[in-house]
Amino acid sequence: MQFRTDLAIEAREIAGENTGGVEFKRYSENGLEISRLIVKNQKARQALGKEIGTYITIELPSLTDNFTETDKRLETVGNEIKRLLPVNGLVLVAGLGNMEITPDSLGPKTSSRVLATRHISGEIARSTGLDRLRPVAVMQTGVTGQTGIETGEYILSIVRRIRPTAVVAIDALASRRPERLGCTLQISDTGISPGAGVGNHRTKITKETVGVPVIAIGVPTVVDAQTLAIDILGSDCNRKTQKMLMPQGRQLVVIPREIDLLTERASRLIAFALNGALQNEFDLPDLISLM
Amino acid sequence: MQFRTDLAIEAREIAGENTGGVEFKRYSENGLEISRLIVKNQKARQALGKEIGTYITIELPSLTDNFTETDKRLETVGNEIKRLLPVNGLVLVAGLGNMEITPDSLGPKTSSRVLATRHISGEIARSTGLDRLRPVAVMQTGVTGQTGIETGEYILSIVRRIRPTAVVAIDALASRRPERLGCTLQISDTGISPGAGVGNHRTKITKETVGVPVIAIGVPTVVDAQTLAIDILGSDCNRKTQKMLMPQGRQLVVIPREIDLLTERASRLIAFALNGALQNEFDLPDLISLM
Amino acid sequence: MQFRTDLAIEAREIAGENTGGVEFKRYSENGLEISRLIVKNQKARQALGKEIGTYITIELPSLTDNFTETDKRLETVGNEIKRLLPVNGLVLVAGLGNMEITPDSLGPKTSSRVLATRHISGEIARSTGLDRLRPVAVMQTGVTGQTGIETGEYILSIVRRIRPTAVVAIDALASRRPERLGCTLQISDTGISPGAGVGNHRTKITKETVGVPVIAIGVPTVVDAQTLAIDILGSDCNRKTQKMLMPQGRQLVVIPREIDLLTERASRLIAFALNGALQNEFDLPDLISLM
Amino acid sequence: MQFRTDLAIEAREIAGENTGGVEFKRYSENGLEISRLIVKNQKARQALGKEIGTYITIELPSLTDNFTETDKRLETVGNEIKRLLPVNGLVLVAGLGNMEITPDSLGPKTSSRVLATRHISGEIARSTGLDRLRPVAVMQTGVTGQTGIETGEYILSIVRRIRPTAVVAIDALASRRPERLGCTLQISDTGISPGAGVGNHRTKITKETVGVPVIAIGVPTVVDAQTLAIDILGSDCNRKTQKMLMPQGRQLVVIPREIDLLTERASRLIAFALNGALQNEFDLPDLISLM
Repeated sequence: MQFRTDLAIEAREIAGENTGGVEFKRYSENGLEISRLIVKNQKARQALGKEIGTYITIELPSLTDNFTETDKRLETVGNEIKRLLPVNGLVLVAGLGNMEITPDSLGPKTSSRVLATRHISGEIARSTGLDRLRPVAVMQTGVTGQTGIETGEYILSIVRRIRPTAVVAIDALASRRPERLGCTLQISDTGISPGAGVGNHRTKITKETVGVPVIAIGVPTVVDAQTLAIDILGSDCNRKTQKMLMPQGRQLVVIPREIDLLTERASRLIAFALNGALQNEFDLPDLISLM
Repeated sequence: MQFRTDLAIEAREIAGENTGGVEFKRYSENGLEISRLIVKNQKARQALGKEIGTYITIELPSLTDNFTETDKRLETVGNEIKRLLPVNGLVLVAGLGNMEITPDSLGPKTSSRVLATRHISGEIARSTGLDRLRPVAVMQTGVTGQTGIETGEYILSIVRRIRPTAVVAIDALASRRPERLGCTLQISDTGISPGAGVGNHRTKITKETVGVPVIAIGVPTVVDAQTLAIDILGSDCNRKTQKMLMPQGRQLVVIPREIDLLTERASRLIAFALNGALQNEFDLPDLISLM
Repeated sequence: MQFRTDLAIEAREIAGENTGGVEFKRYSENGLEISRLIVKNQKARQALGKEIGTYITIELPSLTDNFTETDKRLETVGNEIKRLLPVNGLVLVAGLGNMEITPDSLGPKTSSRVLATRHISGEIARSTGLDRLRPVAVMQTGVTGQTGIETGEYILSIVRRIRPTAVVAIDALASRRPERLGCTLQISDTGISPGAGVGNHRTKITKETVGVPVIAIGVPTVVDAQTLAIDILGSDCNRKTQKMLMPQGRQLVVIPREIDLLTERASRLIAFALNGALQNEFDLPDLISLM
Repeated sequence: MQFRTDLAIEAREIAGENTGGVEFKRYSENGLEISRLIVKNQKARQALGKEIGTYITIELPSLTDNFTETDKRLETVGNEIKRLLPVNGLVLVAGLGNMEITPDSLGPKTSSRVLATRHISGEIARSTGLDRLRPVAVMQTGVTGQTGIETGEYILSIVRRIRPTAVVAIDALASRRPERLGCTLQISDTGISPGAGVGNHRTKITKETVGVPVIAIGVPTVVDAQTLAIDILGSDCNRKTQKMLMPQGRQLVVIPREIDLLTERASRLIAFALNGALQNEFDLPDLISLM
């Protein structure tokens, strides 16, 4: 019986605020509350169930407050991403998840808004100033059920070929708390283990396995139904209830009704901030006019 | 504190099997379990919270068992629909719901698979035998937030103009029980009250308001989170829990992870059965070759 | 043997610049070249094959120059639209065309970006200032082959119900000249005759038929293949060539390879300008944060 | 000044029927006209501008005649594909092209209908009989402008990783003749050179470069506008006309109005036939119930 959460700050809440080997700091910028959590050693890793590394968490305003392209807050988010990236060189951006399932569509929706530039080169690029664009490649991993190819394998194939200096992986997350859905952004440098939560053994994409930094960016869009039940019921969450929450062995998740707006806002936010972080030489309106 | 369910058979379970004024019968055909529930009078209507009329419920096999175009079971479903329709004349098929939200996309996905034929006429139709097609018009109501037009108003506008002999409205439903998601099909002749569950006062589309039979067809794709909590917790479902399940006033729903497959299967099933029910003169493969 | 064009300025080119009853003026604003053409009487109508009324044509920069939300040129386009609209009251925006065919998707793509506000009202709207939004309803007509309902009929049904003070219809156009594809915006107050070019008799949506102004907005996305052939071949365009250009009676159209970018840019441009024209009380970034 | 065609039979028409080194045979099966063209040597390769290898061309009925899942003709098409594939082992199916451009969407639309099975294995597969499924992986290459990764590079990355025994690449083709649009299916064993027609130097995917058979399957959906002009005008196709057909350097293509139906039919046909060819142990309705 376990909580399922992809957020490091929730893992810390569960493990206890005094867990050893965990560094935690809060600050705010441009009206956004930010926290920086560092899992420093194996002991902290075990206690939190989160890989060693840095986790940036940004609290977003409630859904009714949308972002425009000129929003100062995008710069703040962009700066947090930029800090984890190498200064220059090719970056591979990978959108994970399933376009056909709204709460799982954050990855593909976001990556389709990221400016791919790796193919822009040569004389024309030089004469138009486009050679100042940082090279970026963008991929969507699709879904194993539709491709027969595991997400990790898919990314690894491309990494081996195009040799980026960093990978940015975008995926929808699971949170423990409904109020965090769509209102929390997590950026980490700890890579990804696609499908890890499901208990399967799969290809990890981390600095260790691919040799370059792997930045993961996500926003929670679901709460696992069992996690929520345990949270509400505590020790009363008996076998029968758990079974009810897994009819015919199918996993249930909890989503807000306006999941389409939530996903859309998160996707715009990440794409705008990421484009800004990748393309220092251009400001956002210029980039958009290029897109 | 209330259960929310769109299924008449669940309303009967809650009200009690001996509720007066409710007729209930079970039978099976081509391997499908079917029940016919009739709400006969005002008293039964009050007890069940369901309009007076007939509700057919068909239990579908588990998700791993898909339907092909030649499946005998489609005929069974089609026959149940046909029984509620006038023998001939124009039928308006309306898909309700939001294409952008997977669990709410059943209506638009299904209606886009229904063969529109009202515009096929004249010499060519006669010479090719297509004049034997029953006239069918197909619309999607869109979502009020994107149209500024209420679902009921939208349908009514078209009904007033094209004067069908019957309306078929297709929409995703809410069930009380997770195990029914994707595995129950309800067909009723009681019309629709779009957004009724949300407590708003809206335009009803019923035989009374439009003057012709209004058949509603749906499959449950969500369980309301509060309904599920009440079901699990009973009288322990206190104010705090309820609030947790409505963060910032947002409504939560519970869906299975494979909501895309569930919606796809239900959409194919309804579209195939409905096309068969509407076009008696053709068998399904012929219809598909026309589509 | 006839030229097919939806652009009034091309009809004037063909009829000759000195055609009587045609007023024509050019000016420029914010770097955009604009022309105003007025068909003043029946004689001019016959000569040009264009309805009596005003046609604004705006020359857009080449495709590589995109528009951002803060582009001054959007204001210019918005002002031209605003001049044809009543000062206040409900406006119905209708997107015409087929989402599944890229060159025909301008209408639905654009209308899906227009802010629907008609349903926003009451206490909440007042307290948040949203009651200053002009009421707007948005519809997509779909395609007759998929709905069995003619485009004109569809719009008329909604008009009869919601009683707008003006209708704005957005549709992809046919141009005579390839170089105009994606680079010309036409705004007219002469209404629409969906499918008119195809020679069918259909429901017109004009001030005469619906009683309120009907503004048509469009950008050419195709050149009719026969029109182009006549243009190139002149009197040499014989029967055999014409037949080659209508294999098995199918009509051919000419599109540029990058039709997706062209349609996307035109859709953004029209939606931004139209939202600005409709919502005077808000500037565009504010509107976008509402969307 | 050159004809552009992706069809070997058209290249032969242009080069002349007596071109040396070209073997050509016609036959019919289940009502489909089939031709087998073999480019046997370098001389024939030069004369036709087509790689050495076998090209199967199947004439499809006119667009009004659709295919159902049980159509005998699917078997004929499937058999032609099967003959070019190794008897067993993993097959990689790649959909090429742009989902956002209707005439270029054949690849992604078709590949999304191909049953991916490579991930199905282990105990469950054995107990349900699914271990008799041939392993298939499915990918979509996306578009270089959106990914920064060349189509050939993308496929090669995956091939290097998953080591298939054959690659099947599906792409929309260009024909010389409008009447062939949507009505001709070409299957070849000569691999692909994505973007070759555009004159760029790109990664070829052929038996030579990847070490396993590369089957290309396609249906023409466009005619190049310049090719059509040359065809009509012959030696009269002067510089001015050619320029008119490339406004601002943009390439124009000719498509039929009903390009959506054409692409949809071709996609269903190829997907059904390919699924049948890959999965010998199952018949098509069984496969569909698995999908």
